[in-house]
Amino acid sequence: MNDRASINQAPQMRREDRAEAYMRVRAASEALCAPLCIEDYGLQTADFASPPKWHLAHVSWFFETFLLEPYLPGYVIFDPAFRTLFNSYYEQVGQFHPRAERGHLSRPTVEAVYRYRAHVDAAMRDLIAGADEAQWLAIETRLAIGLNHEQQHQELLLTDIKQHFSVNPLRPAYRSDLATPRQGDALPLAWQGFEGGLIDSGFDGEGFCYDNERPQHRVFLNPFALANRPVTNAEYLAFVDAGGYRNPALWLSDGWATVQRLGWGGPRYWERIGGDWHEFTLGGMRTLDLNAPVSHVSHFEADAYATWAGARLPTEAEWEHAAGAVPNEGNFVDADLLHPQTAVGEGLVQLFGDVWEHTASAYLAYPGYRVPEGALGEYNGKFMSGQMVLRGGACATPAGHVRGTYRNFFYPQERWQFQGIRLAQDLT
Amino acid sequence: MNDRASINQAPQMRREDRAEAYMRVRAASEALCAPLCIEDYGLQTADFASPPKWHLAHVSWFFETFLLEPYLPGYVIFDPAFRTLFNSYYEQVGQFHPRAERGHLSRPTVEAVYRYRAHVDAAMRDLIAGADEAQWLAIETRLAIGLNHEQQHQELLLTDIKQHFSVNPLRPAYRSDLATPRQGDALPLAWQGFEGGLIDSGFDGEGFCYDNERPQHRVFLNPFALANRPVTNAEYLAFVDAGGYRNPALWLSDGWATVQRLGWGGPRYWERIGGDWHEFTLGGMRTLDLNAPVSHVSHFEADAYATWAGARLPTEAEWEHAAGAVPNEGNFVDADLLHPQTAVGEGLVQLFGDVWEHTASAYLAYPGYRVPEGALGEYNGKFMSGQMVLRGGACATPAGHVRGTYRNFFYPQERWQFQGIRLAQDLT
Amino acid sequence: MNDRASINQAPQMRREDRAEAYMRVRAASEALCAPLCIEDYGLQTADFASPPKWHLAHVSWFFETFLLEPYLPGYVIFDPAFRTLFNSYYEQVGQFHPRAERGHLSRPTVEAVYRYRAHVDAAMRDLIAGADEAQWLAIETRLAIGLNHEQQHQELLLTDIKQHFSVNPLRPAYRSDLATPRQGDALPLAWQGFEGGLIDSGFDGEGFCYDNERPQHRVFLNPFALANRPVTNAEYLAFVDAGGYRNPALWLSDGWATVQRLGWGGPRYWERIGGDWHEFTLGGMRTLDLNAPVSHVSHFEADAYATWAGARLPTEAEWEHAAGAVPNEGNFVDADLLHPQTAVGEGLVQLFGDVWEHTASAYLAYPGYRVPEGALGEYNGKFMSGQMVLRGGACATPAGHVRGTYRNFFYPQERWQFQGIRLAQDLT
Amino acid sequence: MNDRASINQAPQMRREDRAEAYMRVRAASEALCAPLCIEDYGLQTADFASPPKWHLAHVSWFFETFLLEPYLPGYVIFDPAFRTLFNSYYEQVGQFHPRAERGHLSRPTVEAVYRYRAHVDAAMRDLIAGADEAQWLAIETRLAIGLNHEQQHQELLLTDIKQHFSVNPLRPAYRSDLATPRQGDALPLAWQGFEGGLIDSGFDGEGFCYDNERPQHRVFLNPFALANRPVTNAEYLAFVDAGGYRNPALWLSDGWATVQRLGWGGPRYWERIGGDWHEFTLGGMRTLDLNAPVSHVSHFEADAYATWAGARLPTEAEWEHAAGAVPNEGNFVDADLLHPQTAVGEGLVQLFGDVWEHTASAYLAYPGYRVPEGALGEYNGKFMSGQMVLRGGACATPAGHVRGTYRNFFYPQERWQFQGIRLAQDLT
Repeated sequence: MNDRASINQAPQMRREDRAEAYMRVRAASEALCAPLCIEDYGLQTADFASPPKWHLAHVSWFFETFLLEPYLPGYVIFDPAFRTLFNSYYEQVGQFHPRAERGHLSRPTVEAVYRYRAHVDAAMRDLIAGADEAQWLAIETRLAIGLNHEQQHQELLLTDIKQHFSVNPLRPAYRSDLATPRQGDALPLAWQGFEGGLIDSGFDGEGFCYDNERPQHRVFLNPFALANRPVTNAEYLAFVDAGGYRNPALWLSDGWATVQRLGWGGPRYWERIGGDWHEFTLGGMRTLDLNAPVSHVSHFEADAYATWAGARLPTEAEWEHAAGAVPNEGNFVDADLLHPQTAVGEGLVQLFGDVWEHTASAYLAYPGYRVPEGALGEYNGKFMSGQMVLRGGACATPAGHVRGTYRNFFYPQERWQFQGIRLAQDLT
Repeated sequence: MNDRASINQAPQMRREDRAEAYMRVRAASEALCAPLCIEDYGLQTADFASPPKWHLAHVSWFFETFLLEPYLPGYVIFDPAFRTLFNSYYEQVGQFHPRAERGHLSRPTVEAVYRYRAHVDAAMRDLIAGADEAQWLAIETRLAIGLNHEQQHQELLLTDIKQHFSVNPLRPAYRSDLATPRQGDALPLAWQGFEGGLIDSGFDGEGFCYDNERPQHRVFLNPFALANRPVTNAEYLAFVDAGGYRNPALWLSDGWATVQRLGWGGPRYWERIGGDWHEFTLGGMRTLDLNAPVSHVSHFEADAYATWAGARLPTEAEWEHAAGAVPNEGNFVDADLLHPQTAVGEGLVQLFGDVWEHTASAYLAYPGYRVPEGALGEYNGKFMSGQMVLRGGACATPAGHVRGTYRNFFYPQERWQFQGIRLAQDLT
Repeated sequence: MNDRASINQAPQMRREDRAEAYMRVRAASEALCAPLCIEDYGLQTADFASPPKWHLAHVSWFFETFLLEPYLPGYVIFDPAFRTLFNSYYEQVGQFHPRAERGHLSRPTVEAVYRYRAHVDAAMRDLIAGADEAQWLAIETRLAIGLNHEQQHQELLLTDIKQHFSVNPLRPAYRSDLATPRQGDALPLAWQGFEGGLIDSGFDGEGFCYDNERPQHRVFLNPFALANRPVTNAEYLAFVDAGGYRNPALWLSDGWATVQRLGWGGPRYWERIGGDWHEFTLGGMRTLDLNAPVSHVSHFEADAYATWAGARLPTEAEWEHAAGAVPNEGNFVDADLLHPQTAVGEGLVQLFGDVWEHTASAYLAYPGYRVPEGALGEYNGKFMSGQMVLRGGACATPAGHVRGTYRNFFYPQERWQFQGIRLAQDLT
Repeated sequence: MNDRASINQAPQMRREDRAEAYMRVRAASEALCAPLCIEDYGLQTADFASPPKWHLAHVSWFFETFLLEPYLPGYVIFDPAFRTLFNSYYEQVGQFHPRAERGHLSRPTVEAVYRYRAHVDAAMRDLIAGADEAQWLAIETRLAIGLNHEQQHQELLLTDIKQHFSVNPLRPAYRSDLATPRQGDALPLAWQGFEGGLIDSGFDGEGFCYDNERPQHRVFLNPFALANRPVTNAEYLAFVDAGGYRNPALWLSDGWATVQRLGWGGPRYWERIGGDWHEFTLGGMRTLDLNAPVSHVSHFEADAYATWAGARLPTEAEWEHAAGAVPNEGNFVDADLLHPQTAVGEGLVQLFGDVWEHTASAYLAYPGYRVPEGALGEYNGKFMSGQMVLRGGACATPAGHVRGTYRNFFYPQERWQFQGIRLAQDLT
């Protein structure tokens, strides 16, 4: 049994294994913070990105609020002020500190937040070990959500740190000891066809999934093809050099307005130094690797690129259908590259890991979806407006966290995640 | 042959009939402006709403740019400055005057704009009568787009005037001689079920449709039911009185942020005077008619209401499937009510006319959709981002303009159109 | 007795002469509107500039509110809604329609506003003819304020129309029959010295003055010199060509921020067409007249220019001291040029008329100043914060309206008035 | 010789004493940071307030840029990136990191900034000890500016920390060991009269002053009176309770707009908890001390209070004239209260220390003032626009830093300094 399975496995896991999985996930968050200075923990350089300290505390608040308070008799809240300070957006839990002001809090200190984590961890161990059988199913369900939630914040920790460090003129490196990425030419672009027809979409298996992956439902697909790998930096650079960012005919109307308003001329972390393109990475500034997948492009850019390339983005159903036959493996955070790398191999590669892949699908409820009762219903359902679906996970995603049915979602102008492009086309 | 058919009929119409249809549509725009003072023509009270004068000129610019310039030999442009002034958003045609500054133009005067219309009309008559057979098909295609385009602006003329007049503390009435709406109780709410299955969606008939209604494609629907009529003001008032606008649990996250930011407490034109609810209409201020369909609610409000009512919004495919069996008749602009009225009858009523009906569907490309070549490709395709689909037309829509496959689209916070709510539910 | 004296003369004027003066001022406002189309009356293209229709109504509201309501028995308000609609900023009178939304009112129509004026005029004639002697002094005092108030709005009518027309790509001319300005070279720059010492500043004479010109008080001045004429367009162009707008060392900190934020590269109405500088005027676009005084420059620009030229702006006390010996004559609105013209003559010229002259003085209370009681106290006193004083009147000011002690005031970034620069320097 | 004199004494001080004074000022900055956690050093919670770390580095940059680079042969820059990072606003030195983004820099770390300080200090000691006599006068002049500059930032360190901590819902105390303020009733309000006449204003003595205090010049004053002490919290509370923040008639127009826009209902740090007024202080939350001087009120509030109280604010010349006879002693930072305390004594008390006193004077150049050459000319001169003068120093000001002629300046809406109110009135 590998790590990945252990978190999201079906409910028959032993309690000791659950406890061990809990501690493993919790430790992973802290390991990601090991390279940080105390000063880094409080940074907030954009409204959409949170300070590392906030992430560490919020995921603990989640366990405290949704598991310890309701299920652990005699549990003593670590600090009542944290109820508001580290609530992200759960209106039904109560007030929350404004998102844009998360960087305004020097206290609680980093040390206090680690004490908070330890306090929660001790209580969680008690809960897992001692809970009544009658409550265990409910606890186990919420525990799975809590652990997956913490994994999502592990990815955000990395992408938020990248954002925060990128605006510092010193361009500090988060890590200087990252694994070395694969060298050599990228796999030539090729297309893999699918017949389509009436297929099933959504999760219907064992183990954990989010509510937004359900219910499984039928979707009719026309014949289509997917590119065998994501678009590379070299390919995207050709679009840039061809004036892609200056030609409104290629863009959605809101996309073109965004390009104008924000003065975009390339992906989020590209930077021209002297005459050469560089890229800011979690390992610091690097010469742009032309063979690697382009990343940190928004939906608007992905769509414009696809138009320029005479192709389109896949729908989420197409992507999911194609991913059904592909093993859930790839360049995840555990590979310790923290950057997408050059595609190799045969067939459809890099569907999982490397970069989240933009789709042409708006993030909406599946047919028959119901928002779950209570505050936990706010986890996914209330965001089904204005955002687009991305699929497959990225180099900052914990291995085992995503699935073929997993739906990530961001606004079409956002691009601080490892977001890339896989092209699709019609086969008719 | 009634008016409606004549505009959007299949291509075998005689040229004289085309010319007559052209003049009928053009005259209808001017008739809508008859109640205006000169001062009203220049009003712009919100970025999203244009001055009546701008509408009158822009639709003429459309014929000039897409028909007269390319197809009428020797055509003399009325005024080269209009090329920019009255271009709405066609980047491939050239620059355009900023949308938010359309109200900053006292010149050209109203009289000059009417001369512009006459100049274009004379040339259009020449073009329709004299065009080569070899070019006729292309001309006829663009003519149909031009006339449907002008009809869309006829609806906007009315909804923009309503917006403009509504912010004047004098609350002026656009018309004081409107037809009297139906009285009496609203039809009791009932549900009509549909089996679903694999159905066809999109246009595949004779006559005109927009590019965004194509191609026809297959969609799988679960069994569902639609309400027999739109939600009434009485029903919506119950939601307001139950604290609907103060309960975040009912709202999409972006919707709740909008409620807070804009201080919404009811539909766009509701106003409490003394203790009583009134509604601003194109006929001036009226006591709220509790039996009539609620209108001027945004997607966010429609979604929150549906949640509160234990139902949901229909998808556009569900709506279209249901509408397939319903005659395209209803309270359109020709009924001269300019306001939705109380539902009567049997089966599904008011699908067409009265109020545009919000759907749960994002406005996206159908499978196989390609943006048309050239500047006219900007008509619909580039807006496929961030907007939601509405269906069925309203009391300000010209009769015959909409179809069962017709897709209107607005941002989820917009509500200055006659937008109402038809509930749906799952039948499983 | 000339026109100017008649309005602001001491109280012993006969009532018939007062009535005649009233009607003359009122007629002048309407004469300024004669060249307008109905469409022009409603324009508001910037928050700081009002529609012509609003000016015509507001000045009437002033007489209605401060004279007819309190002093004319049985006076019937023209329309109670106007109390709010045409109140500019008098908090003690009640609410007022938001300044930025004055252009949102197509109703009352232009014709209705002229009827409002006629209604007020008829009542004012009754009041002037029939008021009790016991009340006459109070009435006469307020009448003088009302007439000077209307004259201020006459100037704003012209400068606001200039603003409104300037943003129309058609660049319409307000008048095509303006008087022809003087030709020839500008007077060479020369300096006129003053000894300074303990001088009196502020009004202490007969006739009308504003409260902010009082009380007269003593000010100590060092020896100083004033330029004999305002800075010319040629001189200012040398500053532009020398990179004045790109050199932060010349600017006040807030001024440099304004240059950056608004992208300024020259005076408000300068426009480069082809290779040549032009200027938008009330007579339409003209080639820049290099000999004429520069105008439409803000305090920030005036200060930067003076720094660049090795000089400074005069204080208001210096300016007033120098103006004490100069006749109150010049290029005012009555000259029908509506534009500053080339300086000629001897000694200090163009102190009065042509362009308002920026001073180095903040608009603050004189020693001993008290804000008058009641709503009329809001006329001047509450604006004594953040604004700078300008002196001398301009080509859009009614002749006889200004005095040597007259204080005009605008924010340091504003420049839609005819604002020019007279340099000063120390003589020590 | 006490500490205060030593910094600003006339040039004949020995070099060893200069070096000692330098080290004393530098050590004081670090002592103020002793109570901080590492996390506190990076906080920026408002654009106008900087992180403590930034202050520590910027004052060192000042010595490096204006003394070490030009005058110390062979000086090696600590880090070239700091040239931009820690330049505040000196355009003539080069670019500077945007003020609003000072909180976005977790690196350089706190430890690195302290190393930067040590590096600069070592070099400064070399410079002071070893500079050529030929350069010594220039060095000594700049050294005085640098030390006074650092003292200004010591005050900002405290007021910025207060701002940063105040928005944390935990309301942390900067210090829990502050000295205990005086108890008992405040001195009864009394008025002290002055004859006025032609007086001298501005600095003309020995020792250091800022350029904006010169040249001394003559000013004519009418007879006036000053309140013997600042307005107390009890007095200000009466204004609040009388509806002062809801009555536009009391406010300057821009002030009233500010009250509305920011929702002000009392001084910056007042907070109603339960039914009682509290005040956030550098020692944490305290019950409002009614006898202490009100502080953290803006110019707008000071002016409105004075109007309500039937008085006015003093001009800066009046204040300075009155202060001429008063010893420069009071509750400065060295008293370790870090809060204004109850007035006692006879005559004019608390002119120096406790709270900066608002004046009615705009911050403008004195007659004959010239902006100094070079980048140091940007220190004071370019801010002479839109700000108001405050006088006398406060409880966060280093003792000896201010003088009777010292001019502090802030925008009329700013209130995060210890700003209070001393009333004045005319005696005529």
